[in-house]
Amino acid sequence: MKQHVYLNGHIVPQSEARIPVADRGFRFGDGVFETIAVYNRVPYQWDLHMERLKAGLHALDIPADVTPLQGAAHALISINELNDATLRIAISRGVGSQGYLPTGGANPTVVMETADRITPPATPESLWVSKWEKPSPKALPVEYKLAQGVNSSLARMEAAGHGCLDSILCNARGEICETSSANLFWKKGDMLYTPALECGLLAGTTRAAILRLSPYAIEEGAYVLDTLADADALVVTNTHWQAMPIVEIKPNGWNFAESEALADALRNVLANDIAS
Amino acid sequence: MKQHVYLNGHIVPQSEARIPVADRGFRFGDGVFETIAVYNRVPYQWDLHMERLKAGLHALDIPADVTPLQGAAHALISINELNDATLRIAISRGVGSQGYLPTGGANPTVVMETADRITPPATPESLWVSKWEKPSPKALPVEYKLAQGVNSSLARMEAAGHGCLDSILCNARGEICETSSANLFWKKGDMLYTPALECGLLAGTTRAAILRLSPYAIEEGAYVLDTLADADALVVTNTHWQAMPIVEIKPNGWNFAESEALADALRNVLANDIAS
Repeated sequence: MKQHVYLNGHIVPQSEARIPVADRGFRFGDGVFETIAVYNRVPYQWDLHMERLKAGLHALDIPADVTPLQGAAHALISINELNDATLRIAISRGVGSQGYLPTGGANPTVVMETADRITPPATPESLWVSKWEKPSPKALPVEYKLAQGVNSSLARMEAAGHGCLDSILCNARGEICETSSANLFWKKGDMLYTPALECGLLAGTTRAAILRLSPYAIEEGAYVLDTLADADALVVTNTHWQAMPIVEIKPNGWNFAESEALADALRNVLANDIAS
Repeated sequence: MKQHVYLNGHIVPQSEARIPVADRGFRFGDGVFETIAVYNRVPYQWDLHMERLKAGLHALDIPADVTPLQGAAHALISINELNDATLRIAISRGVGSQGYLPTGGANPTVVMETADRITPPATPESLWVSKWEKPSPKALPVEYKLAQGVNSSLARMEAAGHGCLDSILCNARGEICETSSANLFWKKGDMLYTPALECGLLAGTTRAAILRLSPYAIEEGAYVLDTLADADALVVTNTHWQAMPIVEIKPNGWNFAESEALADALRNVLANDIAS
């Protein structure tokens, strides 16, 4: 695969895609990003990603123009000779002061990279329950993909240390939010359940697609962890995994016999939507 | 001032101090930093900064060796021809995967920059009270200087928008933590008060110096914002400002008549410690 990167209006070889150490993205994670699935050269749910990206930039008061991104995405997919891929767009506040207060005017850094599609694990996976809380929406606008990844990285490393795919993160009230990298859906009887955005979680685009396409009725709400004890099926959803079956919540020993069937059903409606 | 930067073992001109866009520092703010005051070519409280830096790296499981930093600091101060300055050390997890789970082994990015000492404002300043909560220590190891600056940046921009130096951040229980950029000390009668680390705040090195050197008895505890209503004096403390007098908490209209005297007293003990 040819590896070029879009950086501030130019497509350059990956080895030349470098930013100053004074970029506030590096100093403070002061930016937002999007990870977009590309199928047959077409970014899936582009408009939804751009809506969330613009809202995140607005929340952080970063004055970046997303208009050139669609053309840039097509050019990058073309030059990297990709059909199915992952597109990652990152926008930081750009080079700025050493202090938290941004100074020196608006000069955002815009990066777009591609990567191969991740092949999801072939067998169902287990989840851990993180010792870390999800950061509160009163502390950060967590509904956007902020470049504030330490909480997620700690939770993901914790899961790996216990032989699990990922960790469930709950809020300070003990309500289920999401995993480090994905939203959660579970099934009891004929109903699907997923945490409401008000619990403090990423407004995932795959979550949005499932809310739009689900063959089952869905209830969004505030659910404590014990709610999962008697679920029939559990899946995690994101751009990489689409819908991934979870066979067990390991520390609790809770098992989910119908997760693969639920994942298949959800992947099926997603595949139809992608093809349409 | 000559501007060179230390980057991964080499001192290079600032214009060449660039990192790949794939650095997890840029992707996720996945790193820690220190800001150290340099007086007469000597970094102040070096050992204390290195202790906190090492503890932060350990908390994030970033395997970086800080041993070369002291020699690098002296070389950088020398080549940049500085006497009094600020030294900023940033260590990220380095180039890594697009996902939260670190992959590809340990290859941290180490950056050291210098800057002129900031001249604190000549007149006392006001503080705002942020609408944002401080991230919980249950969500992030906030006692270290994580490269997770969005909460602080939002609070600092909020303060600037109201004509204030900085914003006070409280935790979810309404207890005072710190400002976006500094720790807080206030005086009632002959006693100084400052929030305890257990409230969820940065273990500031200037805070530590004041705890060590204060001419007044100090109580560390959990204090709600209203505690400040009848304080006689209020200061904010960090490496840049040392001890800065606060004349007013603006949204509440609370005034502090003795803040300049307190700031002078604290700056005096700090100056003696720096000179010794």
